[in-house]
Amino acid sequence: MVGRAIGSKLVALGHEVRMGSRTPDNEKAADWVSSTGAGAAASQGTFADTADFGELVINCTSGGASLQALSAAGAEHLAGKVLVDVANTLDFSQGPPPSLLVTTKESLGEQIQEAFPEARVVKTLNTVNCDVMVDPSRVPGEHDIFVSGNDDAAKATVRELLESFGWGTDRIVDLGDISTARGPELYIVLWLRLFGLFGDSQFNIEVVR
Amino acid sequence: MVGRAIGSKLVALGHEVRMGSRTPDNEKAADWVSSTGAGAAASQGTFADTADFGELVINCTSGGASLQALSAAGAEHLAGKVLVDVANTLDFSQGPPPSLLVTTKESLGEQIQEAFPEARVVKTLNTVNCDVMVDPSRVPGEHDIFVSGNDDAAKATVRELLESFGWGTDRIVDLGDISTARGPELYIVLWLRLFGLFGDSQFNIEVVR
Repeated sequence: MVGRAIGSKLVALGHEVRMGSRTPDNEKAADWVSSTGAGAAASQGTFADTADFGELVINCTSGGASLQALSAAGAEHLAGKVLVDVANTLDFSQGPPPSLLVTTKESLGEQIQEAFPEARVVKTLNTVNCDVMVDPSRVPGEHDIFVSGNDDAAKATVRELLESFGWGTDRIVDLGDISTARGPELYIVLWLRLFGLFGDSQFNIEVVR
Repeated sequence: MVGRAIGSKLVALGHEVRMGSRTPDNEKAADWVSSTGAGAAASQGTFADTADFGELVINCTSGGASLQALSAAGAEHLAGKVLVDVANTLDFSQGPPPSLLVTTKESLGEQIQEAFPEARVVKTLNTVNCDVMVDPSRVPGEHDIFVSGNDDAAKATVRELLESFGWGTDRIVDLGDISTARGPELYIVLWLRLFGLFGDSQFNIEVVR
C-alpha cells in the first residue's frame, strides 16, 4: 500500500520507478505497474534488480521484514545511495492495536544504517498514513514531517523529494542523526491510539512553539 | 520541579496541598511550602502522610522511582482515590539524551494501575514541560494534552483539573483506557529530540485533522 502510494506519486512527478518484490513477477507489483499507465516509466523486479536500478531506494517493506528485504536487495546495490526508510516495525501478534518490534533504545532506521554502513539512510514519512505522505494537503492546516539521518547531503535530497510531494520547507523538521529516528518510530504508538480514537488515518501532528 | 510547579498552581487555585517526600522534613519541600506564602494551605509530610491527606494524589516523582514512592505512600491511602500520574521513566545512565525505562509493551501508568488496583489512575500531562502543564498559554496557539485511564469518573475529575490549569475542553484528548498511556509515554523520545533541537522546552504538539 505504501509502495503503491509513493510509487504512483513518483511516476506522476516524472520519475522512473521500479517496484521490488521477492520474485520478479509479483502480482501486486504487476497490478501497480499497469495501474500507472506510465509505460516504461513504471516497472517491477526483484529486490536486487530494483535496488540496482534505483538512484534512490525507498524501503516501503513491513518493518519486521525490512532487514531481510534489504539483504535481498544487496549491500552492493545500496552502497553510496540515499536509502529512504519509511517503515514501522508493527507487531500484530498481540493486537489490535499492534505494538512495536523495536525497543526504546534502537530504531529500525539505526538497524538499517548499521547493517548497510555504505548506504545513506534517511528516516522519514513513517509518522503519517501513505495518502498523507504523498499529499500532505489531505490533512488541513499546518503539520510536520520529520527527517533523521547521518548524511546531510542525503537529507537535502530527501527534503527536495518531500517538497515535491507537497511538504512545505518549514514543515520538514530535521531532528538530527539517524539515532533521532527513535522519536518518530516510537511516536507511532501514540499515532495508533489516535487512529483508534478517530477511526481514520487522515491526521498528523504539528509541533507548536 | 514538577511537584513545585503543580503544587504552586493548585495552591494559587485555592486548593490545600501537601507535598510528600521520603522524610517529613525534606528541605526542598520545606522551601516550597514557604515559597507559596499560603499559610496552612501548603504543607509537607511523608509520602504516606501526604497520600492519606489528599483527596486526589498526583505522582510527580521520577518515573524510575514511582512504584517505590507509591508503595511508601501506601495502597490503603490510595484506594478509591484519583491518582494522577504525570511521570516519565527517564533513564539518564546512557544519556544525554535520556532513554526510557519502559518497554514498548507496557507503560508506567499501567504498572501503577496494576500495582495499586484500587487506585483510579489517570495518566496525563507527561508530554509537556511543567511550566506548560500548569499554564498552557506559555505555548502560543492550539495544542493538545492527553488523558488515559480506566475510570471515566476519575478522568472527568482530571479533565476539570486540567481546565482549571487553562487547558481548553477541546484540547484534552481522552485516548481511552490506561493501556493508551503507552502512546504519550513513548512520545517522550520524540519530545526529547525536539527539546535538543530547539534548546528550550516551551513547545507541544497539536493533533491536526
